[in-house]
Amino acid sequence: MTENATPSATLAAFAAGLQFDAIPAAVLRRTEDLFLDWFASALAGKGARPVEAIESYARAMGPADGSAEVLISRRMTSPHFAAMVNAAASHYAEQDDVHNGSVFHPAAVVFPAALAVAQELGASGRAFLTAVVAGYEVGIRVGEFLGRSHYRIFHTTATAGTLAAAAAAGRLLGLDAATMLHAFGSAGTQAAGLWEFLRDAADSKQLHTAHAASCGLASAYLARAGLTGARQILEGPQGMAAGTSSDADPARLTDRLGTRWATAETSFKFHASCRHTHPSADALLSLMQTHGLQADDIASVTTLVHQGAIDVLGRVTVPSTVHQGKFSMGTVLGLVAEYGYAGLNEFEQHFLAPRVAAFRDRVRMELDPEVDGAYPQRWIGKVLVQTRDGRTLSARVDEPKGDPGNTLTRPELEDKAQRLAAYGKAASVQEMQALIARIWAIADAPHIGRWLTPAA
Amino acid sequence: MTENATPSATLAAFAAGLQFDAIPAAVLRRTEDLFLDWFASALAGKGARPVEAIESYARAMGPADGSAEVLISRRMTSPHFAAMVNAAASHYAEQDDVHNGSVFHPAAVVFPAALAVAQELGASGRAFLTAVVAGYEVGIRVGEFLGRSHYRIFHTTATAGTLAAAAAAGRLLGLDAATMLHAFGSAGTQAAGLWEFLRDAADSKQLHTAHAASCGLASAYLARAGLTGARQILEGPQGMAAGTSSDADPARLTDRLGTRWATAETSFKFHASCRHTHPSADALLSLMQTHGLQADDIASVTTLVHQGAIDVLGRVTVPSTVHQGKFSMGTVLGLVAEYGYAGLNEFEQHFLAPRVAAFRDRVRMELDPEVDGAYPQRWIGKVLVQTRDGRTLSARVDEPKGDPGNTLTRPELEDKAQRLAAYGKAASVQEMQALIARIWAIADAPHIGRWLTPAA
Repeated sequence: MTENATPSATLAAFAAGLQFDAIPAAVLRRTEDLFLDWFASALAGKGARPVEAIESYARAMGPADGSAEVLISRRMTSPHFAAMVNAAASHYAEQDDVHNGSVFHPAAVVFPAALAVAQELGASGRAFLTAVVAGYEVGIRVGEFLGRSHYRIFHTTATAGTLAAAAAAGRLLGLDAATMLHAFGSAGTQAAGLWEFLRDAADSKQLHTAHAASCGLASAYLARAGLTGARQILEGPQGMAAGTSSDADPARLTDRLGTRWATAETSFKFHASCRHTHPSADALLSLMQTHGLQADDIASVTTLVHQGAIDVLGRVTVPSTVHQGKFSMGTVLGLVAEYGYAGLNEFEQHFLAPRVAAFRDRVRMELDPEVDGAYPQRWIGKVLVQTRDGRTLSARVDEPKGDPGNTLTRPELEDKAQRLAAYGKAASVQEMQALIARIWAIADAPHIGRWLTPAA
Repeated sequence: MTENATPSATLAAFAAGLQFDAIPAAVLRRTEDLFLDWFASALAGKGARPVEAIESYARAMGPADGSAEVLISRRMTSPHFAAMVNAAASHYAEQDDVHNGSVFHPAAVVFPAALAVAQELGASGRAFLTAVVAGYEVGIRVGEFLGRSHYRIFHTTATAGTLAAAAAAGRLLGLDAATMLHAFGSAGTQAAGLWEFLRDAADSKQLHTAHAASCGLASAYLARAGLTGARQILEGPQGMAAGTSSDADPARLTDRLGTRWATAETSFKFHASCRHTHPSADALLSLMQTHGLQADDIASVTTLVHQGAIDVLGRVTVPSTVHQGKFSMGTVLGLVAEYGYAGLNEFEQHFLAPRVAAFRDRVRMELDPEVDGAYPQRWIGKVLVQTRDGRTLSARVDEPKGDPGNTLTRPELEDKAQRLAAYGKAASVQEMQALIARIWAIADAPHIGRWLTPAA
């Protein structure tokens, strides 16, 4: 590329030119981690009403067979509809990954597009991983570029996600830099997704990822077929930022391409609760493990938190729904104390269990100057525990579990994946064990084949 | 509906409840005119590179048979892809209709969705016409609501068009008011389309209508399947206007519903160029006829225009493609001066002809307060001409040819349709004669069947 290349062109050239061998091994391993985490999130969406509505549309409008797999239904169709349904499914349980700086959930848009195209092409595991990294690197930078003003109205996962999906699909299709830029143009001009649905608790969140993944994938195929797009869809005077942001910074689009691996900055969600509860939950878990405590050993817990946690969580004392339970600090700590984890099943089955409720009433929050001062750059967790035998114990974590500096181990990811698959009743423990083994070896796979659908 | 209904809810209830018998006969006849004009515009897109790229995607991703017809290919597929391709095709030749006040091309998004759903359902001609009117009435009001600030960055046909397509599809599917409102929510949160592509003469215009028609249709089917959407996607605090407009007026959404028939305000295009060039072209034609001038008699032309014309046309100085030529005021006026008409064939054959190019360079645009103030309700054309023999002449037209007060007759529409079909090499004269007869009788058709594709 020339020195005068625009940010859009530089980013497209990076995505088109990314080589497997240029990606550090640690980033590739993390990408495999993200793949398992996404795969299981997609399975967790099985049976959910919005997801099944989108799947019913895909069945009605798409072909009854094809080269790409709808994971929740164990059926094959065209890449367009496989990407659409898998994207909807993986954004349902709210357990898919998140990149903090861009406030963007990359997995739910990148993997559906990459998997569908890789299956159609019979691409290698290396090509698949390379494309996924291209999608993450592009989408995260687009999200950072669009900025906080964009996020106030627009669901960045939907908008930046369309570019991310196009980048991943385009890399697998082998688009050259100029053609990738056309794909970006077509993706950006289809990018959409408004937060308005939150006001009505409507189903648009899954529609957003379905739309982003399918339109992004379409943009890459259309570019290959010769459809041209705007060359500065991101930063141009009538482009995405001009239309939907007031604080866009084009320098973010090309920030340390090839040296900063934003993919590896992505966080895994560990607990299924509001993120403001995670630091305290992790500190409590740490304390109980260090001192060998059971829930019954604990007389009271004081969580030392930032003001934002009190603002968001302070309203919920006795939760009446699972959703409210995810915003109840006492409930989250009760689940953690009882089950070692506040996951989807723990919430569904136990959020009002007598022992959890009793623990909940022994928890209080207190503003902590150090924690509050560090927020939001750092999410420190601190707890003080009074034991029934009279001891006062304390613990802290400097980074919530799942963040890059405190990431999930592969055994932890496997455990989470099993729980997600069980939640969706979408795969057996044995099937998941086989899938997990395949994912850990994906860099050596000669072809991305089927995962759950029997051969015809 | 209650007195407290929101504008979105009132508009959705109108679309859901519209009855054939409530539509004045003159509006229905105009709707038939618009259908023929759209049908022929779709045929004119056959063979066009961007259209065929989208059709190749539909062939790859959609089913190889189905209930809905891709007109340019004489093949059947699912409604999703038929709507997608027909929408792309009908917005290629720039001969499809336009509603001035909303700066919106309703046909290219409403008819593709309505035709596909009507074919799938085997709906009657009356049901089809009713749904089309619902789509026009909704889309036009959404376009007016989003306003001029929206149009500066966004292609209103793409954005408002998604709602229009959803309304037409939803009416045919028999959605009740509440379900139609969910369809609006899903449509609005997928609505997209940026003008940035014009800068590069890229192919996004056809992608925009393809996207709007298919996503709007999808929104209606998804609502029927139970997917919920935001209830105030248009006017809510994180809705379309909040994200993409600074001058939105919610009162426009419900302006005289059921008494003002915006459908019949729609203009037919006479010249094959961007509509913003038409008032000036007609004024120049009028001036040349009045004064008996030839192109060579003219030393310079100043077109007195509204700001929107400068925004859309101002960046094209020397066009390098036919498409850019249609957005070049100088080229359009050069064709008009040389050939008396800027039609499809004139563009294809002469847009860079030396005499046209020389005339082009003698044309400039200037903002005119009167023209700008009247826009977009009225598209006044004013030109000032300096003749080689030293005279300064001026002319104005208050309504360009094709506007409601200066509309095309049925013989003129039939002639235009034949020329469009011939341009696309998509139907013979005899086939068009039969299609035209069928369209003029469509209100009596018991079922909307196939048009060009032989029965399997």
